[in-house]
Amino acid sequence: MTGRLVVKVGASRAEWWRETLQGLLPEFECRDWDDAGDKTTVDYAVVWRPPAGGLKTFPNLKCIVSMGAGIDHVLVDPELPKHLPIIRTVGDDLRQRMREYVALHVLRFHRRLPDIMAAQQRKEWDQVITPPAPERRVAVLGLGNMGAEVAHTLAGLGFDVHGWSRSPKTLEGITCHYGDAGLSELLPLAEILVCLLPLTPATTGILSKDLFAQLPGGACVINVGRGGHLVEEDLIPALDSGHLGGATLDVLHEEPAPEGHPFWTHPKILLTPHIASLIDPEAGAKVIAENIRRFDAGEEVPALVDLAQGY
Amino acid sequence: MTGRLVVKVGASRAEWWRETLQGLLPEFECRDWDDAGDKTTVDYAVVWRPPAGGLKTFPNLKCIVSMGAGIDHVLVDPELPKHLPIIRTVGDDLRQRMREYVALHVLRFHRRLPDIMAAQQRKEWDQVITPPAPERRVAVLGLGNMGAEVAHTLAGLGFDVHGWSRSPKTLEGITCHYGDAGLSELLPLAEILVCLLPLTPATTGILSKDLFAQLPGGACVINVGRGGHLVEEDLIPALDSGHLGGATLDVLHEEPAPEGHPFWTHPKILLTPHIASLIDPEAGAKVIAENIRRFDAGEEVPALVDLAQGY
Repeated sequence: MTGRLVVKVGASRAEWWRETLQGLLPEFECRDWDDAGDKTTVDYAVVWRPPAGGLKTFPNLKCIVSMGAGIDHVLVDPELPKHLPIIRTVGDDLRQRMREYVALHVLRFHRRLPDIMAAQQRKEWDQVITPPAPERRVAVLGLGNMGAEVAHTLAGLGFDVHGWSRSPKTLEGITCHYGDAGLSELLPLAEILVCLLPLTPATTGILSKDLFAQLPGGACVINVGRGGHLVEEDLIPALDSGHLGGATLDVLHEEPAPEGHPFWTHPKILLTPHIASLIDPEAGAKVIAENIRRFDAGEEVPALVDLAQGY
Repeated sequence: MTGRLVVKVGASRAEWWRETLQGLLPEFECRDWDDAGDKTTVDYAVVWRPPAGGLKTFPNLKCIVSMGAGIDHVLVDPELPKHLPIIRTVGDDLRQRMREYVALHVLRFHRRLPDIMAAQQRKEWDQVITPPAPERRVAVLGLGNMGAEVAHTLAGLGFDVHGWSRSPKTLEGITCHYGDAGLSELLPLAEILVCLLPLTPATTGILSKDLFAQLPGGACVINVGRGGHLVEEDLIPALDSGHLGGATLDVLHEEPAPEGHPFWTHPKILLTPHIASLIDPEAGAKVIAENIRRFDAGEEVPALVDLAQGY
């Protein structure tokens, strides 16, 4: 046995995760977060939304492992031990699922599927002609691991893809914009906007009425970043005025969405339950186990987070 | 002026087509089919669903031009002058639209969008996990111009793509099957089946209860070939028994679908009004004009039909 780890995840799957990681990491002792035993001997914490103040109760952690591509659910802890490295969980599987999801929802808006399904409901044979994808401009905000892969997938489908990032990037086949000036330049062109940004203080609330106002009329918005990117109260007015054509949201401020949330029933909002790139437990557990083993052996872990950048 | 041509299309767009082709082919005299003048001097007939017996009333035609990728709408004429060459209309634009449509509808089934939208209606946060595309087998029937392009597009999205054609083909990244034996081998593997076959006596009614029975349980069917490929009365029993998970149909025996047609309202059928690869009049007219000009100059026209094969 080379170390001890604890697992913190939603109650319904906690036992599955503990057992699975134990099976994949026999050289470690894997315990549930609430059944950690001697907290001073815990080396790794594998977490999804750990309780505030919880991580600091393990004084000798070597590393925190986020069970997802983002770490905002860890960073919200005001008492987070900030010196600790954090490993994100990003695998081929997560990138694959994300590109499927975005391709599906971009195509759905591009080919006006909501209008076509509404016509079927009315039993009307209404032949909608849409421009071919090379004449449809799609903007991808965020050109990290996920964003770059998504941009290439959309370009492969024929779309005119523009990307935006904080600092300059070069991606083959993608028109790249950056910084504040680049965003102002891109927004008026973006017929379909995909948000794949990391959630940082600079990107919180970026999907706001100010941004929507800069989009062309009829633009559609897809948020697969985090709920915090969207100013929720700004969305419905922009849809109801007709300025925005539709929105697909995979993330919300509060998840699951509360029962009375207006997004459940708005006719121009498609709400999906944080499944764009939901971690497949089988595949995700393998990635997590491999990352812990590499970290523990002092090998390079590509998904290690630079906390100074916040993602 | 080097020749005369007549145009036969649905009444609502007839004048637009005549004028547009006249603009693109100033060296020809372009007339409406019903206003042809001296029929013995008409060289070309550009047609969509010409009336039976109509083409033979132009005794000196050099060529028939089909305003679409298929020619079944011409071949149904029992009095068709069979010695005439036929030019199909296939452009980058049509291939591009077809691959968008099929990608959208394959992804829709793959990611279980109907279930996810139904959950939103019930206000249920139901996190459906689907396998990633490399674990999803998609079969494309028909590996012609359109079929091959669609197969490559699906492979580019990560799907495990199998193709089927009458005679052996080799396509990079696609597992190709052929002939009757190949079909029997492929069907039990096909979780999502896309029909892109030409309509010939051998393929008429291929989407039948016999074929459905060979698919795995829960399989979904997408027909973007012709209405005649589907035995319409076999579909609803296969859906209602739960054996088929869903069907997306872009083509029907009778189009537009008659008012009382059960496909309009079946909850597992998505009916689209023959728009998968609807010809964009602007782009299509340019392709048609260019094909006529090449044919008239004795140059090679790649989309010229070999009538012996029926497509």
